[in-house]
Amino acid sequence: MNLNDDVERPKSIDLSHHLSDLAIARGVSPLKSMFKYLGRPGLIALAGGVPNPDYFPFATLEATTLPIDAYKATPDLETEPSALSWLWNLFSGPNKQRTNKISVPKYVSDPINEVNLATALQYGMATGIPSLQAFLKEYSARFYKPGFSDFTVLVHTGNTDGWSRVVYSLLNHGDSMLVEEWTYPSALASAFPLGVHTVSVPMDSKGMRPDALREILSNWNETERGFKRPRLLYTVPIGQNPSGLTTGSERKKAIYAICVEFDIIIGEDDPYFILQEGEYLPPNIRAQKQAASTSNTSDPVEAFIDTLEPSYLRYDYQGRVIRMDTFSKTIAPGSRMGWFTCNPLFAERFERHGETSTQAPSGFAQSMITQLVVKTWGMEGYIRWLQGIKAQYTLRRDAFIDAMMHELDITLTQGTGILEGATVYQGSIKESGWSVMTEKKKKPRVSFVPPTSGMFVWLRVDFEGLPPPIAVPGEGENDTTHEGRFWTALAEGGLLIGPGYMFRGERDHSPEDPNLAGHYRISFSDATHEGMQKASKIFAKILKEYCSK
Amino acid sequence: MNLNDDVERPKSIDLSHHLSDLAIARGVSPLKSMFKYLGRPGLIALAGGVPNPDYFPFATLEATTLPIDAYKATPDLETEPSALSWLWNLFSGPNKQRTNKISVPKYVSDPINEVNLATALQYGMATGIPSLQAFLKEYSARFYKPGFSDFTVLVHTGNTDGWSRVVYSLLNHGDSMLVEEWTYPSALASAFPLGVHTVSVPMDSKGMRPDALREILSNWNETERGFKRPRLLYTVPIGQNPSGLTTGSERKKAIYAICVEFDIIIGEDDPYFILQEGEYLPPNIRAQKQAASTSNTSDPVEAFIDTLEPSYLRYDYQGRVIRMDTFSKTIAPGSRMGWFTCNPLFAERFERHGETSTQAPSGFAQSMITQLVVKTWGMEGYIRWLQGIKAQYTLRRDAFIDAMMHELDITLTQGTGILEGATVYQGSIKESGWSVMTEKKKKPRVSFVPPTSGMFVWLRVDFEGLPPPIAVPGEGENDTTHEGRFWTALAEGGLLIGPGYMFRGERDHSPEDPNLAGHYRISFSDATHEGMQKASKIFAKILKEYCSK
Repeated sequence: MNLNDDVERPKSIDLSHHLSDLAIARGVSPLKSMFKYLGRPGLIALAGGVPNPDYFPFATLEATTLPIDAYKATPDLETEPSALSWLWNLFSGPNKQRTNKISVPKYVSDPINEVNLATALQYGMATGIPSLQAFLKEYSARFYKPGFSDFTVLVHTGNTDGWSRVVYSLLNHGDSMLVEEWTYPSALASAFPLGVHTVSVPMDSKGMRPDALREILSNWNETERGFKRPRLLYTVPIGQNPSGLTTGSERKKAIYAICVEFDIIIGEDDPYFILQEGEYLPPNIRAQKQAASTSNTSDPVEAFIDTLEPSYLRYDYQGRVIRMDTFSKTIAPGSRMGWFTCNPLFAERFERHGETSTQAPSGFAQSMITQLVVKTWGMEGYIRWLQGIKAQYTLRRDAFIDAMMHELDITLTQGTGILEGATVYQGSIKESGWSVMTEKKKKPRVSFVPPTSGMFVWLRVDFEGLPPPIAVPGEGENDTTHEGRFWTALAEGGLLIGPGYMFRGERDHSPEDPNLAGHYRISFSDATHEGMQKASKIFAKILKEYCSK
Repeated sequence: MNLNDDVERPKSIDLSHHLSDLAIARGVSPLKSMFKYLGRPGLIALAGGVPNPDYFPFATLEATTLPIDAYKATPDLETEPSALSWLWNLFSGPNKQRTNKISVPKYVSDPINEVNLATALQYGMATGIPSLQAFLKEYSARFYKPGFSDFTVLVHTGNTDGWSRVVYSLLNHGDSMLVEEWTYPSALASAFPLGVHTVSVPMDSKGMRPDALREILSNWNETERGFKRPRLLYTVPIGQNPSGLTTGSERKKAIYAICVEFDIIIGEDDPYFILQEGEYLPPNIRAQKQAASTSNTSDPVEAFIDTLEPSYLRYDYQGRVIRMDTFSKTIAPGSRMGWFTCNPLFAERFERHGETSTQAPSGFAQSMITQLVVKTWGMEGYIRWLQGIKAQYTLRRDAFIDAMMHELDITLTQGTGILEGATVYQGSIKESGWSVMTEKKKKPRVSFVPPTSGMFVWLRVDFEGLPPPIAVPGEGENDTTHEGRFWTALAEGGLLIGPGYMFRGERDHSPEDPNLAGHYRISFSDATHEGMQKASKIFAKILKEYCSK
């Protein structure tokens, strides 16, 4: 692998003026004065309060693991060419017979290069197991091809921890940050207690709008706003949470250029990067296309990487992107493990932050993931595993949208306004469900853009023409809108999804009047096929009831 | 087990006025509005962005584990009654033949009660696996017998994370906290960047001095100090880091009473609680005593608990103690897992903090530790394991002090002044080491109180009569003192230990002039017997050279 690609890339520029008071006040590592002695042969080190590894009650850690090709690399029909065979492929699960064994002993002959519990379960550096760190650096280099040369990787305990370190390292009390107008609430929950204001940037079908971003920044009036112009942008660029939208390369370049112009740091929270499922095709078209397809085998690795939308890092020639990756969607959320890719100055401050909070990710997680991914699968094997995961979520996405299409009368229209360029699926209640059809009832009540990445379908429900809800004393603010009431009606009907108000970029401001239109995040990542069908039925039934009132 | 003991205990009082602005500003859990639906039968929950567990590549996690009695429960001679047989007991390691197997499958028939990867490796509540939480609550009840009834336990990712949550939840920028005059530097590294001032409380051989604490608090002059009276006390009460001192029950009661009087919250960081090794006895006395001992078997569980110094929780009738426990010393540091025991109000705020930073401890660690400790060993078994760990560190403590006694001329004296009541070991350079004995050379240069708990021997080296060191341009502040230079001389000689200046409770203030006396923390927790002997030899040799200058 050539980390330098074929171009000479610049080093990151000095962005130290973005560090928060807290980040600046963090000391150097207290171990610094000891470092120069630590490697010396024959040194007796009695400086640390470390237990003897003999006393770890785990003599080995072992696991039964799935093979890299447990899931097919592409969501095609292959061996069972019936129109529904892909459902079997999805819901029959992996071949349970074909498993492998991995084992991590406590002691090994080469503890630097072999994973071992005496090291992994001991106190360690906040940088984690060195071979894992090297692997992650290679991964970031190959998948993201950062535009600056001195990018650094650092493990964290998942993107929630990662983002929390970014917030505390870059923002002071009363600072502000830019977010997508619908955004991930946990990311805000890290920042709000610090008194951070959010400034939401309108989106269209391609994600955050550069024109809107520029307008916000160039017309910033500190007196009017009551706080300084933002210096940090939080974004989930691929399979966005909650909207499911994906920001492509042209859009990323445009946003990056604005961030350079206004000196903005980009926090790229990208857990769904691998789940780039591609365009949704209705069942009949999909079946035709799959029957014609000849690619039954996995793509060559580089070809696979080339099919993926790039990271912001690709265009980052200054080192102003802090990318956060996680193993939550590719291995398991309980790993509590992920990594930063960013400039070395920020990485060092994040490391100091880690030393006084989480330290390193758990040695149980580090040792098992390193042994499986780094030592057993290797990079090519892991990429094959990722292809299988991507294909599985593609099948799930298709199955869920198919189910919605089955329960609603869906019409495909070309989006207008902010949905310009997108194919919008508009759904109305099926005719059979009505005794007498009226214009009001035939009105398309539901619309969505099928996601090309991630885990979420973002539904918009049109409440136009319905009488405004009457507030009941004691109700919470969000329960008194159509958005909130329809959510409650769904929940009472047996379907729990995410209500739009949870995802507002600015807490007290909804991008659309929640009495005229409600927004809902539905996750297709973990339902059975039966559950998807049942969910769609409940949705259609409650929608009909709600709009008949 | 009767959590209520035999007395009716009060509930915790309202201590919400101690919460920091940050803690107050944290929202309620964003999931709150969903809770009432989550348990409903038949509910289709598509609200969370959770991966399907089929896609976790780990089908089972397994481990080879040591039996609960891998180590003898008491550090006695038992089967091999030679004076040195205990060394074999220590350094031959556990019986490698006797191991057990544990296994955690992905799917189980009763996922609420059986540990399973589909749950443990999924996103989960910041409270962790429920059966682990129940176990920890029982553990805290049995070992600490809290004086208030509504104590709550909450997992964290180790005491560094735990303490960090305490600091951010209780202190605002510019606040202050009380610490022991020598203290754990990482605890300060969490607080200093927040602009927190430390106020160090003098110690004697029984730990922090109540008279000194009272004097500080009752004579507090905010104008003179420049900051408000502290509201938080940080303490490592057992096997204190770095001094090795243990604060017993009378002392704890006295300090607790002062904390009630002045409305102080106690942060009890107690990783060495189980390592209560008891009094050190020189080899000849120890051999006699052990030969006479008949207790070859483990103590009954309650008897074992009764031998341990109590936690501050025992006397806490108001809920003002925040106790932090860790698995680092009893299972392994790489667990990155521990727990709070504290009042429910603080626990809830710590949980919210956890939700936006570490979330829950890694599911790999949680599942393996729960399967081993909770499900396989059970409480009685785990306590037997802990007895073995305690016995092992007792042997290590003895071996290290024996080695020091072998290399130095040690005299036992009754401590005076702040060491009143303690037996002090004073060491001078062995006569054979000197060609001509002079008074200066015979002077006892080294003194220490053998620890009754923990992992550390805290050495004081007397530099009196030596010419003051001459500063060399470019040297760091701490390198220019005798304390720093002797540390460097030791490190250059091949022995790395902890220099006193690292452990100052107030960064710029040493409790003793480092040109007159140096302090050093030596850890006996992870050295081979040969390493201990070599370390003692290096120490004696460098001491002789340094004092001959």
